[in-house]
Amino acid sequence: MFTNAVRACSNRTSREIFKNEFKRHISKTSSVPNSECMSSRQQTASPEKIASTKWMKLRKHSNIRALSTVNANAAAPQTLSLVSKDESREFMSIFPDIVRDLTDAGRHTDIPEVTKRFAKVLQYNVPNGKKNRGLAVVAAYKMIESPENRTPENIRLANVLGWCVEMLQASFLINDDIIDAAETRRGVPCWYTNEGVGLQAINDAVMIENGLYSILRKYLSGHHCYVPTLELFNDVILKTSMGQSLDAMSIVDGRPKLDSFTMNRYSAIVKYKTAYYSFQLPVALAMYMAGKYDPEMHRQAKTILLEMGHFFQVQDDFLDCFGNPEVTGKVGTDIRDGKCSWLAVVALQRATPAQRQIMEDHYGRPAPESEAAIRNLYEELGLPNTYSIYEEESFNLIRTHIQQISKGLPHKLFFKFMEKIYKREC
Amino acid sequence: MFTNAVRACSNRTSREIFKNEFKRHISKTSSVPNSECMSSRQQTASPEKIASTKWMKLRKHSNIRALSTVNANAAAPQTLSLVSKDESREFMSIFPDIVRDLTDAGRHTDIPEVTKRFAKVLQYNVPNGKKNRGLAVVAAYKMIESPENRTPENIRLANVLGWCVEMLQASFLINDDIIDAAETRRGVPCWYTNEGVGLQAINDAVMIENGLYSILRKYLSGHHCYVPTLELFNDVILKTSMGQSLDAMSIVDGRPKLDSFTMNRYSAIVKYKTAYYSFQLPVALAMYMAGKYDPEMHRQAKTILLEMGHFFQVQDDFLDCFGNPEVTGKVGTDIRDGKCSWLAVVALQRATPAQRQIMEDHYGRPAPESEAAIRNLYEELGLPNTYSIYEEESFNLIRTHIQQISKGLPHKLFFKFMEKIYKREC
Repeated sequence: MFTNAVRACSNRTSREIFKNEFKRHISKTSSVPNSECMSSRQQTASPEKIASTKWMKLRKHSNIRALSTVNANAAAPQTLSLVSKDESREFMSIFPDIVRDLTDAGRHTDIPEVTKRFAKVLQYNVPNGKKNRGLAVVAAYKMIESPENRTPENIRLANVLGWCVEMLQASFLINDDIIDAAETRRGVPCWYTNEGVGLQAINDAVMIENGLYSILRKYLSGHHCYVPTLELFNDVILKTSMGQSLDAMSIVDGRPKLDSFTMNRYSAIVKYKTAYYSFQLPVALAMYMAGKYDPEMHRQAKTILLEMGHFFQVQDDFLDCFGNPEVTGKVGTDIRDGKCSWLAVVALQRATPAQRQIMEDHYGRPAPESEAAIRNLYEELGLPNTYSIYEEESFNLIRTHIQQISKGLPHKLFFKFMEKIYKREC
Repeated sequence: MFTNAVRACSNRTSREIFKNEFKRHISKTSSVPNSECMSSRQQTASPEKIASTKWMKLRKHSNIRALSTVNANAAAPQTLSLVSKDESREFMSIFPDIVRDLTDAGRHTDIPEVTKRFAKVLQYNVPNGKKNRGLAVVAAYKMIESPENRTPENIRLANVLGWCVEMLQASFLINDDIIDAAETRRGVPCWYTNEGVGLQAINDAVMIENGLYSILRKYLSGHHCYVPTLELFNDVILKTSMGQSLDAMSIVDGRPKLDSFTMNRYSAIVKYKTAYYSFQLPVALAMYMAGKYDPEMHRQAKTILLEMGHFFQVQDDFLDCFGNPEVTGKVGTDIRDGKCSWLAVVALQRATPAQRQIMEDHYGRPAPESEAAIRNLYEELGLPNTYSIYEEESFNLIRTHIQQISKGLPHKLFFKFMEKIYKREC
């Protein structure tokens, strides 16, 4: 019951914030950097108190949130999309071409079994997620490109680039699931758990990753953005693998290394493992396609997008513990897995020696009682409240940065992304 | 004892062949395509008989072979190298720069733990093999490039490209070892078996692979061969992963699928999994660097290099079973692992129903008796002899193709490669 209320309230907060956005409301806390505000929280009680009062107020409104979630007439699902239903359908309609390009008879006639398998690997792993990253390329391109260049051919190219981002992600998710010994992904068994797949999935991930470069070559060869796009993908894949590596270092011999759970480390993991490929990459790709190469423009976009990526992951970590599995579609395992999550980092920042001992004893253990002990500790430490404050601060900070964009990038693009993220429940 | 003699003789054969090379001796069997000659072997007894006689003769000379292996004064080790000792030293001297380029403080200052680990991953996995593929780039470049362009800077670049090929291989070997549950590689424990590594090695392979693209960017950006080189690496990595996939399909539920062990399939596995990256790639890279883009020139080189790659793998399969572990540095596991090896394919082509049953009962089983049963069967079927015939035929065919090169590529380059391969013992 409590967690339901928490979920509702935290979402309510961002919704309310959104209404205020167009009033250009500047929050008092907007100058506090996201990742640092938490470390100073212990010393400064007052912002917490303010938020706590707000929190109590918001809890009363939890029924509003609940209503909007189940209300079929609610406009939310539509406004939450970066693209229209037609655009989403258009995106899906291009996927079979991608599969055909990678597996058609003309390419590898002597190994039909492999091309058949490759098609299956692509079908199973690439198009069944939310496709937000892929669709973000299309949405960003349409907003960045000048009207005269927004031709059907160029829109199609942006869709293809979107699929390349989805392929990048699919390739990483296949490996992540093997490394984490995960069981399900996107509501179906993880690829490697399928009969006859097993560790061969590692090689399938290599095929997908290199397949995306083949697609880039087929569609972009000769285009002004070809080389920058290739280099960007390469750079982002390297960064993502480095993030994955850093994340893995949080656990040694199957036990979380709590001493390493600092906010700095958390921020670095998130930036490398998620933010670059999920946020910076789609927009940078769209910018290149639209011929925007100005480094300062890219720097401004990157700053904002990495901040969004950071918030997105904090939210993800929060939902992993306090989200509704029926809405998120997944049962959180961060506590059991001993992940270096935002909740764990903040908990360790605030814990008394006794509370820290609870973390040492129960964090990263499979027993349900251990998970319950950590969840209780999180609530005892007021983490849902802290999250709510963080959400608002982060929102305000990013909004300020968007407003400061001076290099011709459409503010609308970034606000659209924010809306998408801050309103999400899953 | 017998296998020692076999080893000695088969090597003796290629050595003798080599002496004849400069006499431009054309063998009667040189027109028979490598991979097809085996399938027709059952019907045509005569070439086998000829070879068998030769085989018996050669066995008598096994002591010569043994002498040349242990004789410290023998010139063989030097003539076996594609490059001189100095060139080999030069190649090694460049590796620390590659590591520095990928891990220096300027790149990822916020994740020192990861760059430290990356350096360790590179050190452990990249420079400790025979480095033939990397050195082949340097050797090929020196032979293809015009004297005036053979500057120290360009030689250095060729060395860097050589390391990129070694990185490609390292990345694949890390994954292969995980998939095959291998224990040792290059005389040391496989990377993934190291303490604290485990399945995280999958991600290390991704880092190495994408690291090579970063190196290409750093050294070749702006060079005329930059984009063709990027595309070639991408294409070859995709092909190699496809070969790996095809190879894996030979085993279903842990049991070898003997029905699929045809010579056609074997040839496809070898071409995709080994020949492209080990033979075609190094020479094509050198050609691009030297500004040789003529498609017909590349086609001619590719034909010969893929044939060499095919022979190389057949030889590898032969040595896996009949090689001397003290010389090869590894204990063969193809029989136990149920690999679609050249020996297994030829054995199945020739087996009577009773002999096929031995394959069904014992191939791909861990018991030493099973391995012995297969080894006996191979000897009973005269496979060492067949190998010896194949070796000669393959040699003659490739020599003919080299002599037919019409597009300005130095024949010497290919003969040097042949010498290196046909004389090898490990």
